[in-house]
Amino acid sequence: MKKSLGANTLAQPTPVWVVGSYDAAGKANMMTIAWGGICCSKPPCVAISLRKERHSYAAIMERKAFTVNIPSQMHAQEADYVGMVSGAKADKFAATGFTAIKSELVDAPSVQEFPLVLECRLLQTIDLGAHTQFIGEILDVKADESILGPDGHIDTAKLKPMVYAPGSGLYYGVGEAVGKAYSLGKAIAG
Amino acid sequence: MKKSLGANTLAQPTPVWVVGSYDAAGKANMMTIAWGGICCSKPPCVAISLRKERHSYAAIMERKAFTVNIPSQMHAQEADYVGMVSGAKADKFAATGFTAIKSELVDAPSVQEFPLVLECRLLQTIDLGAHTQFIGEILDVKADESILGPDGHIDTAKLKPMVYAPGSGLYYGVGEAVGKAYSLGKAIAG
Repeated sequence: MKKSLGANTLAQPTPVWVVGSYDAAGKANMMTIAWGGICCSKPPCVAISLRKERHSYAAIMERKAFTVNIPSQMHAQEADYVGMVSGAKADKFAATGFTAIKSELVDAPSVQEFPLVLECRLLQTIDLGAHTQFIGEILDVKADESILGPDGHIDTAKLKPMVYAPGSGLYYGVGEAVGKAYSLGKAIAG
Repeated sequence: MKKSLGANTLAQPTPVWVVGSYDAAGKANMMTIAWGGICCSKPPCVAISLRKERHSYAAIMERKAFTVNIPSQMHAQEADYVGMVSGAKADKFAATGFTAIKSELVDAPSVQEFPLVLECRLLQTIDLGAHTQFIGEILDVKADESILGPDGHIDTAKLKPMVYAPGSGLYYGVGEAVGKAYSLGKAIAG
Protein backbone atom coordinates (compact mmCIF):
# COMPACT_ATOMS: atom_id res chain seq x y z
CA MET A 1 0.00 0.00 0.00
CA LYS A 2 1.59 3.23 -1.14
CA LYS A 3 1.40 6.47 0.78
CA SER A 4 -0.24 9.51 -0.84
CA LEU A 5 2.10 12.50 -1.14
CA GLY A 6 -0.53 14.73 -2.78
CA ALA A 7 -0.88 16.55 -6.09
CA ASN A 8 2.61 17.80 -6.85
CA THR A 9 5.66 17.41 -9.07
CA LEU A 10 7.66 14.84 -7.09
CA ALA A 11 8.88 12.94 -10.17
CA GLN A 12 12.43 11.70 -10.54
CA PRO A 13 14.80 12.03 -12.24
CA THR A 14 14.51 15.54 -13.65
CA PRO A 15 17.36 17.09 -15.66
CA VAL A 16 19.62 19.98 -14.71
CA TRP A 17 19.76 22.07 -17.87
CA VAL A 18 20.83 25.65 -18.47
CA VAL A 19 18.81 27.60 -21.04
CA GLY A 20 20.60 30.31 -23.02
CA SER A 21 18.92 33.33 -24.61
CA TYR A 22 19.55 36.95 -25.62
CA ASP A 23 17.34 39.56 -23.97
CA ALA A 24 15.83 42.60 -25.72
CA ALA A 25 19.00 44.60 -25.06
CA GLY A 26 21.09 41.84 -26.65
CA LYS A 27 22.59 40.71 -23.35
CA ALA A 28 23.37 37.01 -23.16
CA ASN A 29 21.51 35.34 -20.30
CA MET A 30 21.16 31.85 -18.89
CA MET A 31 18.78 30.17 -16.45
CA THR A 32 18.69 26.72 -14.88
CA ILE A 33 15.65 24.51 -15.31
CA ALA A 34 14.57 21.04 -14.24
CA TRP A 35 11.12 21.08 -15.89
CA GLY A 36 11.88 19.78 -19.36
CA GLY A 37 12.61 16.81 -21.56
CA ILE A 38 12.87 15.50 -25.10
CA CYS A 39 9.39 15.47 -26.64
CA CYS A 40 9.72 14.32 -30.27
CA SER A 41 12.19 12.34 -32.38
CA LYS A 42 11.20 13.69 -35.81
CA PRO A 43 11.54 16.62 -35.96
CA PRO A 44 13.86 16.37 -32.96
CA CYS A 45 12.31 18.55 -30.27
CA VAL A 46 12.91 19.45 -26.66
CA ALA A 47 10.40 20.96 -24.24
CA ILE A 48 11.36 23.39 -21.49
CA SER A 49 8.99 25.07 -19.06
CA LEU A 50 9.42 28.59 -17.72
CA ARG A 51 7.36 30.91 -15.54
CA LYS A 52 6.10 34.02 -17.34
CA GLU A 53 7.88 36.29 -14.90
CA ARG A 54 11.30 34.90 -15.79
CA HIS A 55 13.66 37.22 -17.67
CA SER A 56 14.28 34.42 -20.17
CA TYR A 57 10.58 34.14 -20.99
CA ALA A 58 10.37 37.44 -22.88
CA ALA A 59 13.80 36.84 -24.37
CA ILE A 60 12.82 33.52 -25.94
CA MET A 61 9.46 34.89 -27.08
CA GLU A 62 11.24 37.78 -28.82
CA ARG A 63 14.07 35.90 -30.54
CA LYS A 64 12.19 32.62 -31.08
CA ALA A 65 15.32 30.76 -30.12
CA PHE A 66 17.10 29.20 -27.15
CA THR A 67 19.87 26.79 -26.33
CA VAL A 68 19.82 23.93 -23.84
CA ASN A 69 23.26 23.61 -22.26
CA ILE A 70 24.10 20.56 -20.23
CA PRO A 71 26.46 21.25 -17.33
CA SER A 72 28.86 18.71 -15.93
CA GLN A 73 28.81 17.93 -12.24
CA MET A 74 31.99 19.98 -11.79
CA HIS A 75 29.92 23.10 -12.51
CA ALA A 76 27.12 22.36 -10.04
CA GLN A 77 27.83 25.56 -8.12
CA GLU A 78 27.55 27.74 -11.22
CA ALA A 79 24.45 25.89 -12.44
CA ASP A 80 22.77 26.46 -9.09
CA TYR A 81 23.71 30.15 -9.05
CA VAL A 82 22.25 30.54 -12.55
CA GLY A 83 18.93 29.24 -11.19
CA MET A 84 18.94 31.53 -8.15
CA VAL A 85 19.40 34.95 -9.67
CA SER A 86 17.44 36.85 -12.35
CA GLY A 87 19.11 38.00 -15.53
CA ALA A 88 17.13 41.23 -15.13
CA LYS A 89 19.39 42.09 -12.17
CA ALA A 90 22.67 40.30 -12.83
CA ASP A 91 25.03 39.52 -15.64
CA LYS A 92 25.31 35.82 -14.92
CA PHE A 93 28.02 35.25 -17.52
CA ALA A 94 30.18 37.89 -15.83
CA ALA A 95 29.43 36.54 -12.34
CA THR A 96 30.36 32.97 -13.23
CA GLY A 97 33.23 33.90 -15.52
CA PHE A 98 31.58 31.83 -18.25
CA THR A 99 31.75 32.68 -21.93
CA ALA A 100 28.67 33.25 -24.10
CA ILE A 101 29.16 31.90 -27.61
CA LYS A 102 26.88 33.09 -30.41
CA SER A 103 25.20 30.01 -31.84
CA GLU A 104 25.76 29.06 -35.42
CA LEU A 105 22.14 28.27 -36.27
CA VAL A 106 19.91 30.17 -33.83
CA ASP A 107 19.73 33.61 -32.25
CA ALA A 108 20.73 32.48 -28.76
CA PRO A 109 24.03 32.09 -26.92
CA SER A 110 25.52 28.85 -25.68
CA VAL A 111 27.74 28.37 -22.64
CA GLN A 112 31.25 27.49 -23.74
CA GLU A 113 32.18 25.83 -20.43
CA PHE A 114 29.32 23.29 -20.61
CA PRO A 115 30.23 20.25 -22.72
CA LEU A 116 26.95 19.69 -24.57
CA VAL A 117 24.50 22.09 -26.19
CA LEU A 118 21.27 21.84 -28.18
CA GLU A 119 20.57 24.76 -30.55
CA CYS A 120 16.81 25.24 -30.69
CA ARG A 121 14.34 27.18 -32.79
CA LEU A 122 11.09 27.95 -30.97
CA LEU A 123 8.25 25.99 -32.59
CA GLN A 124 5.38 26.68 -30.22
CA THR A 125 4.45 27.74 -26.72
CA ILE A 126 1.81 26.11 -24.55
CA ASP A 127 0.45 28.00 -21.57
CA LEU A 128 -0.16 25.44 -18.81
CA GLY A 129 -0.70 27.68 -15.79
CA ALA A 130 2.24 28.73 -13.63
CA HIS A 131 4.56 27.53 -16.39
CA THR A 132 4.59 27.95 -20.14
CA GLN A 133 6.09 25.14 -22.13
CA PHE A 134 8.41 26.10 -24.97
CA ILE A 135 8.80 23.47 -27.66
CA GLY A 136 12.07 23.89 -29.51
CA GLU A 137 13.16 22.12 -32.65
CA ILE A 138 16.73 20.95 -32.13
CA LEU A 139 18.62 22.19 -35.19
CA ASP A 140 21.99 20.92 -33.99
CA VAL A 141 23.66 19.23 -31.04
CA LYS A 142 27.23 20.28 -30.35
CA ALA A 143 29.61 18.51 -28.00
CA ASP A 144 33.11 18.91 -26.66
CA GLU A 145 35.32 16.20 -28.18
CA SER A 146 36.37 15.34 -24.61
CA ILE A 147 32.97 13.79 -23.82
CA LEU A 148 32.84 11.53 -26.88
CA GLY A 149 33.71 7.87 -26.60
CA PRO A 150 35.74 5.91 -29.18
CA ASP A 151 32.45 4.90 -30.89
CA GLY A 152 31.53 8.56 -31.43
CA HIS A 153 28.69 8.44 -28.89
CA ILE A 154 28.48 10.79 -25.95
CA ASP A 155 30.05 8.98 -23.00
CA THR A 156 27.82 9.71 -20.01
CA ALA A 157 30.67 8.95 -17.61
CA LYS A 158 32.62 11.80 -19.24
CA LEU A 159 29.68 14.19 -19.64
CA LYS A 160 28.71 13.72 -15.99
CA PRO A 161 25.24 15.28 -16.27
CA MET A 162 23.26 15.98 -13.12
CA VAL A 163 19.74 15.17 -12.06
CA TYR A 164 17.58 17.16 -9.70
CA ALA A 165 15.36 15.62 -7.03
CA PRO A 166 12.27 17.76 -6.32
CA GLY A 167 11.30 17.58 -2.65
CA SER A 168 14.74 17.07 -1.15
CA GLY A 169 16.09 19.74 -3.53
CA LEU A 170 19.31 17.80 -4.03
CA TYR A 171 21.39 17.51 -7.16
CA TYR A 172 22.83 14.10 -7.91
CA GLY A 173 25.45 12.86 -10.30
CA VAL A 174 24.82 9.97 -12.66
CA GLY A 175 26.16 6.65 -11.41
CA GLU A 176 27.18 3.34 -12.93
CA ALA A 177 25.83 1.94 -16.20
CA VAL A 178 23.04 -0.54 -15.45
CA GLY A 179 22.75 -2.10 -18.92
CA LYS A 180 21.79 -1.51 -22.50
CA ALA A 181 18.32 -0.68 -23.79
CA TYR A 182 16.60 -3.16 -26.13
CA SER A 183 18.98 -5.76 -24.77
CA LEU A 184 18.45 -6.23 -21.01
CA GLY A 185 14.79 -7.09 -21.60
CA LYS A 186 15.48 -9.93 -24.05
CA ALA A 187 15.70 -12.39 -21.19
CA ILE A 188 11.97 -11.77 -20.59
CA ALA A 189 10.90 -11.26 -24.23
CA GLY A 190 12.40 -14.67 -25.06
CA MET B 1 35.31 24.51 -30.49
CA LYS B 2 32.51 21.98 -30.19
CA LYS B 3 31.85 19.24 -32.71
CA SER B 4 28.48 19.16 -34.50
CA LEU B 5 26.55 15.93 -33.91
CA GLY B 6 23.61 16.99 -36.11
CA ALA B 7 19.90 17.57 -35.56
CA ASN B 8 18.86 14.86 -33.12
CA THR B 9 17.74 14.11 -29.57
CA LEU B 10 21.11 13.52 -27.88
CA ALA B 11 20.15 15.27 -24.63
CA GLN B 12 21.03 13.88 -21.21
CA PRO B 13 19.79 12.90 -18.75
CA THR B 14 16.41 11.55 -19.85
CA PRO B 15 14.18 9.64 -17.42
CA VAL B 16 13.23 5.96 -17.46
CA TRP B 17 9.51 5.99 -16.76
CA VAL B 18 6.84 3.35 -17.25
CA VAL B 19 3.44 4.60 -18.40
CA GLY B 20 0.37 2.65 -17.29
CA SER B 21 -2.97 2.57 -19.13
CA TYR B 22 -6.01 0.38 -19.78
CA ASP B 23 -6.70 -0.51 -23.40
CA ALA B 24 -10.14 -0.63 -25.04
CA ALA B 25 -10.62 -4.22 -23.87
CA GLY B 26 -9.81 -3.17 -20.30
CA LYS B 27 -6.44 -4.92 -20.27
CA ALA B 28 -3.81 -3.22 -18.12
CA ASN B 29 -0.76 -2.26 -20.17
CA MET B 30 2.53 -0.51 -19.57
CA MET B 31 5.22 1.00 -21.79
CA THR B 32 8.64 2.48 -21.07
CA ILE B 33 9.44 6.01 -22.19
CA ALA B 34 12.38 8.39 -21.97
CA TRP B 35 10.78 11.33 -23.78
CA GLY B 36 9.08 13.17 -20.95
CA GLY B 37 9.42 15.53 -18.03
CA ILE B 38 7.63 17.72 -15.54
CA CYS B 39 6.15 20.70 -17.40
CA CYS B 40 4.19 22.79 -14.88
CA SER B 41 4.14 23.35 -11.11
CA LYS B 42 0.57 24.69 -10.80
CA PRO B 43 -1.41 22.73 -11.75
CA PRO B 44 1.25 20.04 -11.35
CA CYS B 45 1.70 18.51 -14.81
CA VAL B 46 3.91 15.96 -16.49
CA ALA B 47 4.47 15.59 -20.24
CA ILE B 48 5.08 12.24 -21.91
CA SER B 49 5.59 11.67 -25.63
CA LEU B 50 4.34 8.61 -27.51
CA ARG B 51 4.27 7.57 -31.16
CA LYS B 52 0.77 7.26 -32.62
CA GLU B 53 1.32 3.60 -33.47
CA ARG B 54 1.88 2.63 -29.84
CA HIS B 55 -0.80 0.51 -28.19
CA SER B 56 -0.80 2.94 -25.25
CA TYR B 57 -1.60 5.89 -27.53
CA ALA B 58 -5.20 4.82 -28.24
CA ALA B 59 -5.60 3.62 -24.66
CA ILE B 60 -4.72 7.01 -23.18
CA MET B 61 -6.82 8.86 -25.75
CA GLU B 62 -9.81 6.69 -24.86
CA ARG B 63 -9.59 6.79 -21.07
CA LYS B 64 -8.06 10.28 -20.75
CA ALA B 65 -5.80 8.95 -18.02
CA PHE B 66 -2.38 7.43 -17.44
CA THR B 67 0.08 6.76 -14.68
CA VAL B 68 3.81 7.45 -14.64
CA ASN B 69 5.56 4.72 -12.67
CA ILE B 70 9.15 5.15 -11.66
CA PRO B 71 11.12 1.91 -11.59
CA SER B 72 14.09 1.30 -9.35
CA GLN B 73 17.37 0.17 -10.84
CA MET B 74 16.69 -3.37 -9.55
CA HIS B 75 13.90 -3.62 -12.15
CA ALA B 76 15.98 -2.46 -15.13
CA GLN B 77 15.42 -5.75 -16.94
CA GLU B 78 11.64 -5.53 -16.63
CA ALA B 79 11.60 -1.82 -17.54
CA ASP B 80 13.59 -2.57 -20.68
CA TYR B 81 11.32 -5.48 -21.64
CA VAL B 82 8.28 -3.22 -21.23
CA GLY B 83 9.80 -0.85 -23.81
CA MET B 84 10.61 -3.63 -26.30
CA VAL B 85 7.30 -5.38 -26.73
CA SER B 86 3.85 -4.09 -27.76
CA GLY B 87 0.87 -4.44 -25.46
CA ALA B 88 -1.12 -5.34 -28.59
CA LYS B 89 0.77 -8.65 -28.70
CA ALA B 90 1.78 -9.39 -25.13
CA ASP B 91 0.39 -9.19 -21.63
CA LYS B 92 3.36 -7.40 -20.11
CA PHE B 93 2.06 -7.66 -16.56
CA ALA B 94 1.83 -11.45 -16.93
CA ALA B 95 5.26 -11.68 -18.59
CA THR B 96 7.01 -9.68 -15.86
CA GLY B 97 4.97 -11.09 -13.01
CA PHE B 98 4.09 -7.54 -12.01
CA THR B 99 0.78 -6.55 -10.47
CA ALA B 100 -1.54 -3.93 -11.99
CA ILE B 101 -3.26 -1.84 -9.32
CA LYS B 102 -6.36 0.15 -10.22
CA SER B 103 -5.63 3.78 -9.42
CA GLU B 104 -7.64 5.57 -6.85
CA LEU B 105 -8.14 8.78 -8.81
CA VAL B 106 -7.76 7.99 -12.51
CA ASP B 107 -8.83 5.28 -14.94
CA ALA B 108 -5.36 3.78 -15.38
CA PRO B 109 -3.38 1.06 -13.62
CA SER B 110 -0.20 1.54 -11.65
CA VAL B 111 2.63 -0.95 -11.24
CA GLN B 112 2.73 -2.21 -7.67
CA GLU B 113 6.40 -3.25 -7.84
CA PHE B 114 7.63 0.25 -8.76
CA PRO B 115 8.08 2.48 -5.70
CA LEU B 116 6.73 5.78 -7.04
CA VAL B 117 3.72 6.59 -9.17
CA LEU B 118 2.05 9.73 -10.52
CA GLU B 119 -1.69 9.44 -11.19
CA CYS B 120 -2.50 11.65 -14.18
CA ARG B 121 -5.60 12.98 -15.88
CA LEU B 122 -5.06 13.82 -19.56
CA LEU B 123 -5.27 17.59 -20.04
CA GLN B 124 -4.22 17.98 -23.65
CA THR B 125 -2.36 16.38 -26.52
CA ILE B 126 0.07 18.14 -28.81
CA ASP B 127 0.93 16.54 -32.14
CA LEU B 128 4.59 17.27 -32.80
CA GLY B 129 5.36 14.89 -35.68
CA ALA B 130 6.60 11.38 -34.97
CA HIS B 131 5.53 11.84 -31.36
CA THR B 132 2.46 13.23 -29.70
CA GLN B 133 2.93 14.87 -26.35
CA PHE B 134 0.39 14.03 -23.66
CA ILE B 135 0.10 16.60 -20.89
CA GLY B 136 -1.22 15.03 -17.73
CA GLU B 137 -2.32 16.81 -14.60
CA ILE B 138 -0.81 14.99 -11.63
CA LEU B 139 -3.73 14.35 -9.27
CA ASP B 140 -1.66 12.42 -6.76
CA VAL B 141 1.83 11.06 -6.18
CA LYS B 142 2.03 7.78 -4.29
CA ALA B 143 5.20 6.29 -2.85
CA ASP B 144 6.29 3.18 -1.04
CA GLU B 145 7.14 4.08 2.56
CA SER B 146 10.49 2.35 2.02
CA ILE B 147 11.75 5.18 -0.25
CA LEU B 148 10.90 8.01 2.16
CA GLY B 149 13.59 9.56 4.30
CA PRO B 150 13.12 10.60 7.94
CA ASP B 151 12.15 14.12 6.75
CA GLY B 152 9.28 12.70 4.68
CA HIS B 153 10.98 13.51 1.37
CA ILE B 154 11.64 10.89 -1.25
CA ASP B 155 15.19 9.68 -0.71
CA THR B 156 16.74 9.34 -4.16
CA ALA B 157 19.34 6.90 -2.83
CA LYS B 158 16.46 4.60 -1.83
CA LEU B 159 14.30 5.21 -4.91
CA LYS B 160 17.27 4.51 -7.21
CA PRO B 161 15.67 5.91 -10.39
CA MET B 162 17.42 5.38 -13.71
CA VAL B 163 18.38 7.69 -16.51
CA TYR B 164 18.65 6.81 -20.18
CA ALA B 165 21.43 8.01 -22.45
CA PRO B 166 20.26 8.38 -26.07
CA GLY B 167 23.05 7.50 -28.49
CA SER B 168 24.86 4.91 -26.41
CA GLY B 169 21.48 3.44 -25.43
CA LEU B 170 22.68 2.77 -21.90
CA TYR B 171 20.72 2.99 -18.69
CA TYR B 172 22.51 4.50 -15.71
CA GLY B 173 21.78 4.62 -12.03
CA VAL B 174 21.82 7.86 -10.07
CA GLY B 175 25.06 8.50 -8.19
CA GLU B 176 26.15 10.55 -5.22
CA ALA B 177 24.47 13.74 -4.04
CA VAL B 178 26.35 16.76 -5.39
CA GLY B 179 24.74 19.44 -3.25
CA LYS B 180 21.55 21.31 -2.50
CA ALA B 181 19.68 23.59 -4.87
CA TYR B 182 19.35 27.29 -3.91
CA SER B 183 22.32 26.75 -1.64
CA LEU B 184 25.39 25.70 -3.64
CA GLY B 185 25.16 28.87 -5.75
CA LYS B 186 25.20 31.26 -2.78
CA ALA B 187 28.99 31.35 -2.93
CA ILE B 188 28.68 33.14 -6.28
CA ALA B 189 25.50 35.15 -5.56
CA GLY B 190 27.21 36.62 -2.51
